[in-house]
Amino acid sequence: MKLATYTHAGRTGLGIVRGDRLVELDVVAPTLPRDMIGLLSDARALGALKNVAPDAPSIALADVTLRAPVLNPGKILAIGLNYRDHVEESNMALPEHQVWFNKQHNCVNDPYAGFNLPSVSTMFDYEAEMCFVIGKRCKHVPKERAHEVIAGYFVGNDATVRDWQLRTNTWQIGKSFDTHGPIGPWIVTPDEVGDPHALDIKCWVNGELRQNSNTKHLIFNCFDQVAHLSQAFTLDVGDVIFSGTPSGVGMAQKPPSFLKLGDKVRIEIDKLGYIENTVIAENAATIIE
Amino acid sequence: MKLATYTHAGRTGLGIVRGDRLVELDVVAPTLPRDMIGLLSDARALGALKNVAPDAPSIALADVTLRAPVLNPGKILAIGLNYRDHVEESNMALPEHQVWFNKQHNCVNDPYAGFNLPSVSTMFDYEAEMCFVIGKRCKHVPKERAHEVIAGYFVGNDATVRDWQLRTNTWQIGKSFDTHGPIGPWIVTPDEVGDPHALDIKCWVNGELRQNSNTKHLIFNCFDQVAHLSQAFTLDVGDVIFSGTPSGVGMAQKPPSFLKLGDKVRIEIDKLGYIENTVIAENAATIIE
Repeated sequence: MKLATYTHAGRTGLGIVRGDRLVELDVVAPTLPRDMIGLLSDARALGALKNVAPDAPSIALADVTLRAPVLNPGKILAIGLNYRDHVEESNMALPEHQVWFNKQHNCVNDPYAGFNLPSVSTMFDYEAEMCFVIGKRCKHVPKERAHEVIAGYFVGNDATVRDWQLRTNTWQIGKSFDTHGPIGPWIVTPDEVGDPHALDIKCWVNGELRQNSNTKHLIFNCFDQVAHLSQAFTLDVGDVIFSGTPSGVGMAQKPPSFLKLGDKVRIEIDKLGYIENTVIAENAATIIE
Repeated sequence: MKLATYTHAGRTGLGIVRGDRLVELDVVAPTLPRDMIGLLSDARALGALKNVAPDAPSIALADVTLRAPVLNPGKILAIGLNYRDHVEESNMALPEHQVWFNKQHNCVNDPYAGFNLPSVSTMFDYEAEMCFVIGKRCKHVPKERAHEVIAGYFVGNDATVRDWQLRTNTWQIGKSFDTHGPIGPWIVTPDEVGDPHALDIKCWVNGELRQNSNTKHLIFNCFDQVAHLSQAFTLDVGDVIFSGTPSGVGMAQKPPSFLKLGDKVRIEIDKLGYIENTVIAENAATIIE
């Protein structure tokens, strides 16, 4: 099943995507929760989705604005240096342990929205990643049970401001500018994904193929990641994990090639669909509300 | 003014602390928001607090359980290597740029609660820090206006699992085990704090003084921190910032001295009060809800 958050006629809701159509849940199942975290938290609601009739009324996907499938995750974690070829192009050592950072929730962005060229940097870069979302509150999950807590998979761009990232060892701030976490286009549930570690992942900038790998090359796979993180802290429903990027980022091009105004970054993963974001100017004004 | 979140008779609410008494806001001002982020977001509500009569009914502070003043911050950011003497004891270089990491919201803990000895480490450490909370949604705040967006100050323990912290450059996971962010005992508003960069900060373990400094020694002060962070992302009402720890952490004792079951860590800052947390055993069971 493909679960989307969308906006249509000024209203934001949840839907099931079927081909080029979208079944609006507040039409066919008006008692269900209206936001993704609420839906994923409710086992009965998820069960009810399976009973939505094959001929349920739907609208054209082209008529809605797809939104980040989880609009306000409680936390977003991202692993670095998790494809061998990307470790090499970054001139880093192969990590012995999983290397994690956070993205702030403020970076969450829609799958086809613009994202900001920072006013304070010219080193704006892309990173194609498979993401997943937590579906059960959990702690100390052994690797062999990790699949139980993953509600689904989707595409993400771990957009990065390279100079801000690399000027401190913790990377943190350069990984999390506002709008720098486009995700989507929808959540694909595990039954429909099959093996999440056998998916081609590709990224194009203005139509030029830049990243081209497969999730089978993840050093620490999604289940390793859940097992590791949940030893330290509780994972909550709606938490989003970025699982790492393969080689081919802009900084590693010869010569390095960073994103400019108007550039289009398209990231596509087998079975999950694609997202495409265009670089727009940041509003650099002081805002104090 | 001192603004507390507290639990009393099974009910959690907000109060004004006056000496050893607490004025319950839902008694004296029942129309105000019932949670701290709601209150701080509402300029009229904050104004109304000033009209609470000096003889308003109150209860004994000793009868309530003080809670983390912000129970569920949207984000928690913490700066590392921000007192020169702590940089030296850590054998690190003096940072040219601000070094940031996140703590997950799951680490938020009450000022007098137990906190977990991790089941996966024996290197559990304390870090006394002054914290502050954001009171206005903001972006691109110049340093000279940063005071406008700070709603108040309080005490925090940036509890750290040293082996997990130091085995990767990003530090992230060792900084954020569940319960490892006790804060409180309440928010002291800026008018009552005066200069936040002139406060003694001390930490005792089982009565032994371990850290003893003053916030005037911060390398990047609170206003530098707001200016830096808000260039990258929006700061939201309720976001909590840990401003750095001085020398004297357990790892730097000779020999190193990590926390053990039953140890009491007390952290006190001039004008802000103190927090005291006792090390308890972690529940290491697998939980999948």
